[in-house]
Amino acid sequence: MKSHLLLLSMVTTIAVAQTPSYPDAAASDPLTLGLMQGFPPAADKTIRFIDGSSLKFPNTRWSFSHIRELVPTARVARDNGTPTKLPYALKDLDGLAFTDMNGAPRTWKEMLALTYTDGVVVMHKGKIVYEKYIGALDTNGQHIAMSVTKSFVGTLAAMLVHEGKLDANAPVIKYLPELKETAYGDATVRQVMDMTIGVRYSENYADPKAEIWAYAAAVGMAPIGLDYKGPRTAYDFLVGLQKEGEHDQAFAYKTVNTEVLAWILRRVSGKNLATLLSERIWQKIGAEQDAYIAVDSIGAEMGGGGLNANLRDFARVGEMMRLGGKFNGQQVVPAAVVADIANGADKAKFAKAGYKLLPNWSYRNMWWVTDYGAYSARGIHGQAIYVDPKNQMVIARFGSHPIAANAAQDPLALPAYRAMAAHLNK
Amino acid sequence: MKSHLLLLSMVTTIAVAQTPSYPDAAASDPLTLGLMQGFPPAADKTIRFIDGSSLKFPNTRWSFSHIRELVPTARVARDNGTPTKLPYALKDLDGLAFTDMNGAPRTWKEMLALTYTDGVVVMHKGKIVYEKYIGALDTNGQHIAMSVTKSFVGTLAAMLVHEGKLDANAPVIKYLPELKETAYGDATVRQVMDMTIGVRYSENYADPKAEIWAYAAAVGMAPIGLDYKGPRTAYDFLVGLQKEGEHDQAFAYKTVNTEVLAWILRRVSGKNLATLLSERIWQKIGAEQDAYIAVDSIGAEMGGGGLNANLRDFARVGEMMRLGGKFNGQQVVPAAVVADIANGADKAKFAKAGYKLLPNWSYRNMWWVTDYGAYSARGIHGQAIYVDPKNQMVIARFGSHPIAANAAQDPLALPAYRAMAAHLNK
Repeated sequence: MKSHLLLLSMVTTIAVAQTPSYPDAAASDPLTLGLMQGFPPAADKTIRFIDGSSLKFPNTRWSFSHIRELVPTARVARDNGTPTKLPYALKDLDGLAFTDMNGAPRTWKEMLALTYTDGVVVMHKGKIVYEKYIGALDTNGQHIAMSVTKSFVGTLAAMLVHEGKLDANAPVIKYLPELKETAYGDATVRQVMDMTIGVRYSENYADPKAEIWAYAAAVGMAPIGLDYKGPRTAYDFLVGLQKEGEHDQAFAYKTVNTEVLAWILRRVSGKNLATLLSERIWQKIGAEQDAYIAVDSIGAEMGGGGLNANLRDFARVGEMMRLGGKFNGQQVVPAAVVADIANGADKAKFAKAGYKLLPNWSYRNMWWVTDYGAYSARGIHGQAIYVDPKNQMVIARFGSHPIAANAAQDPLALPAYRAMAAHLNK
Repeated sequence: MKSHLLLLSMVTTIAVAQTPSYPDAAASDPLTLGLMQGFPPAADKTIRFIDGSSLKFPNTRWSFSHIRELVPTARVARDNGTPTKLPYALKDLDGLAFTDMNGAPRTWKEMLALTYTDGVVVMHKGKIVYEKYIGALDTNGQHIAMSVTKSFVGTLAAMLVHEGKLDANAPVIKYLPELKETAYGDATVRQVMDMTIGVRYSENYADPKAEIWAYAAAVGMAPIGLDYKGPRTAYDFLVGLQKEGEHDQAFAYKTVNTEVLAWILRRVSGKNLATLLSERIWQKIGAEQDAYIAVDSIGAEMGGGGLNANLRDFARVGEMMRLGGKFNGQQVVPAAVVADIANGADKAKFAKAGYKLLPNWSYRNMWWVTDYGAYSARGIHGQAIYVDPKNQMVIARFGSHPIAANAAQDPLALPAYRAMAAHLNK
């Protein structure tokens, strides 16, 4: 844990130190920069996956809205009929004032720019009160959700547990005997679902030697060199993970846990992740667009961060959760599963992970749960589905902040969300 | 031309000689074979792009319905609303009898198996009278359309010509000065649209040294070796094409012509191919699914063969053409453009290409035009949109025949289509 804490605080420090050296949101707007414009685009405006340029800021301001043009993807099919209607009651909220975590006075609109937001939808009492798209993202587009993906995997797992198809207290190897000699050999499914696994795996995006990059190469989300001899699938990567520390002692955010859970879901259901997401959620909420997930070299979806979706469809998901799982005239997610997420997990275990900006939070079924009634799916670079049932508010946001760790923008975004809730309920 | 003719007749000969050595449609059904089943699939049932296995029969019986999971793709967005309704008037047509070009008595159902059909929709007088999906393709799926793609590029070009935005009689280099020193340096847009270009480029899929494979590598549809130093975009490939023979003398089917035309379309419209297809056709016909196109390393679409679509959406396109371009309450393609396609091009030039199975046909705006009133978009391995206005019939078909050249299945499919038209109009 100690090394993880150290890395984490390093990321936070770097974030604060490096932010000023990046061009701001307006200066890095992909349309302003002319990225990928023209046929062909100029060499210095061309973004490719194979040379790594698609992963570099400011190119990410374009590529996060164009993932399927860069890597292979699996379709998360919507239902064939008419999408559910999201009613509008737009308000002028750009000037909404709040104080950020560092004590500076800010407006909502400033927050959007400072967090490099690509799109945001705010819903209150079931209506869209604010909606904005910036740069490469448009109303009908899809944007990568990064680790927001995990919350879908966690929810699907909790649904199967609720239905008695998956035993949360069972050992992981009941479902995946392939993991017997790995860190997961003596772990339970619940420990995976709540990320209290002791596994040697660094998630520090600022460290080029961190295992997160080997993982990214294995699942096909980072380009590989000519001399690459490593694993080319999530499966092959997971079977090599070794134990570090003990399970069930502390929350430790490690993307590979979600890959293990996604594998369990496939094994238990006999369906791939894209199909499960389509049948269980996308078709039922009346999504207006297909979503899609990045896949590895054998078509297995990146459960830890590969989902790409339309922002209004994320708003629908948030609304469904806010309403206790009920949406579009049906119970999409069991009310008990939603309540279990909203109740959170062990706060003491979460505290050990040292997220200073998230006091008294916890992590349940791969959702981040606050101590004030709201909970959130969160992804690096600024992705979020933020559900605040008490204030009848849902926020869906996509971003392309130059720094991966949300610690770089939480000081702005989280107080802005709370101020928005207070304002809307005035 | 002579070498092209030789290669073509070789393909036909090989086709006849090799057919018996492939497992038949039932034996090569991807579900029966268990291809890509399980998490992970067994090693000998795993299909990848990177090792070339996705391009090999019988794996193609799976991969032709899963292209987006293998390579990057651009979305051809449908309209957000309710899809246009295709009414049903299903008939039992499996037993429809006909005589194939070799004089053998056949049934429709036999034809589907012998041509390794993955899906087929027959429409008569605006209603679906027959619909079937086999193997890896289902009702809501998408299948690669191969060179059917070309007919969309040709139609879009003809539309821009009709609108006065593109001059068919202008030299190619008016729009693409980049091609001055290539085979296209002294060609006109019309010659490209009707494929009467003299360019050194072999389309013989049976020859591993044919340029078609270098093209496939450049556009990202064939895997490249570690030592690959060739072009990685369609643009880079096209600027290297040299002249062979003269323009305007004979029809010569070469996929690169469509890539040149796609480039012209982008340059003239300022939009990429996926956007043009979406705005001009997919949104207007009320498609029920997004389509998608395989892209090269910089996101440029493979205009020569990369389109993947839902079969019923292809039926909608066929209906739109049958109805003189009018569908879904609007003129999608100008009637004059449809009439120009239906009228065909110079038959004498076509005859020089030596397609013995297609007597008196011609090739106009990248559609194949018969001498009996029907015309067709055609793609290797059995893809087709077949429009027969006189008989008020449209057929959309996807297949995964082991042999690329349609000469391997035209002796079955073409008489079957004509027998179907006669039967439906009895």
